[in-house]
Amino acid sequence: MRKGCYDPRERIKDMDIDGVDAQVTFPTLPGLAGAAFIEIQDRPYALALMRAYNDWLVDEWQAADPERIISAGILPLWDLSAAAEELRRIYERGMKCISLPSHPNSLGVAPFGDPSWEPLWDAMEETGVPAEIHIVSGKADVSFLQDAAGSPAEVFVCMAPSSNMQIVANLLFSGILHAHPKLKFISAESGIGWLPYFLERADYTHRKHQFWTGTKIDVTPSDLFRQSIYANFISDK
Amino acid sequence: MRKGCYDPRERIKDMDIDGVDAQVTFPTLPGLAGAAFIEIQDRPYALALMRAYNDWLVDEWQAADPERIISAGILPLWDLSAAAEELRRIYERGMKCISLPSHPNSLGVAPFGDPSWEPLWDAMEETGVPAEIHIVSGKADVSFLQDAAGSPAEVFVCMAPSSNMQIVANLLFSGILHAHPKLKFISAESGIGWLPYFLERADYTHRKHQFWTGTKIDVTPSDLFRQSIYANFISDK
Repeated sequence: MRKGCYDPRERIKDMDIDGVDAQVTFPTLPGLAGAAFIEIQDRPYALALMRAYNDWLVDEWQAADPERIISAGILPLWDLSAAAEELRRIYERGMKCISLPSHPNSLGVAPFGDPSWEPLWDAMEETGVPAEIHIVSGKADVSFLQDAAGSPAEVFVCMAPSSNMQIVANLLFSGILHAHPKLKFISAESGIGWLPYFLERADYTHRKHQFWTGTKIDVTPSDLFRQSIYANFISDK
Repeated sequence: MRKGCYDPRERIKDMDIDGVDAQVTFPTLPGLAGAAFIEIQDRPYALALMRAYNDWLVDEWQAADPERIISAGILPLWDLSAAAEELRRIYERGMKCISLPSHPNSLGVAPFGDPSWEPLWDAMEETGVPAEIHIVSGKADVSFLQDAAGSPAEVFVCMAPSSNMQIVANLLFSGILHAHPKLKFISAESGIGWLPYFLERADYTHRKHQFWTGTKIDVTPSDLFRQSIYANFISDK
């Protein structure tokens, strides 16, 4: 295994070779959004693991060059007040972003529109820390993304990026971006090719269906997207 | 209720008012793809219901004008040899298309790539009858489409059309369009705005991942799409 995979000083050299100025690194061992720790039922133990991981990110990993390696912190999402507290702690320690799940339900975590998230939204607005929502982040078993066990392997690969549509739609229609205009989210590894279609569809949905849905927003979803959501891409031709 | 909803002769008049030349009508009481009948465990009874429904489509519903009302027939998908037999029977009786589910797994039906579908693919090629795959067709309970029960109602509306990506990807990568080049499928009520992104992603998936997936195709997915799959749209601006 290449040293740049685990030694951040070696990684900086690899980034120079590749012409990479800066990068956001996501949790591997703890799982995206810290899923593997969230699935541990011994909560004090899981919280200790999360704090140790976040401290390691600050003290070892991004310490090699905090301007070039930006680590995504993880939070104890089973208790969103504790999550807000951990966010404030790691922000004070120098962390610049967090990793939240694209499929909170798969982890037994409330949907983003639930009022229990309010303490974390407040802490994100207060600190200005954005949340990266990586595609297919949630329960370690990703079968929640596949209709049929017998699907060809390519179906998962083909569907994975645009599967973030679902959580972006949740963000847009949940009302939280309206109530918390300073929140920032990144749709990570999702590509951007589906966005023009999706935002047109979201605006259509709002325009045509707001009369029965009890809508929580009074601006268009695409306005909220431009206000609060970023997305990244890998290749552009 | 407007008479055109249940009286096909009145419906033709409504179509004239609306400027509609011809239309494909989908099963309502039996559910898209006949899902409500497929969920009946008394199979001989369910088959009798299906045949009666298909006969009613021919004798009553599309009889008003078979050139302008094209009914989608339903098949006993729990036994795909019986399904092939019913397809041949209704084709002989004058039916021009069938309704297949976007989520076969939700009905306990094998994925389209499974060899058990071969008798039906043969019958479709032999008769030239295309299959309409309507969005969100499968189990009566559509919760299989939603990650979280707490999602705003708009999320379902926003996601529903492009949710057909999943079954189109299954068709493209399953190999059946390669083995049966005369098959024809329609992605129904799915819109078309997501297709340019999706086909680029499908081709990328094939190009980059064919070396480990044990791919069943040796042409690009977009070639197979152009060969065998149609999609429709509602509004165009």
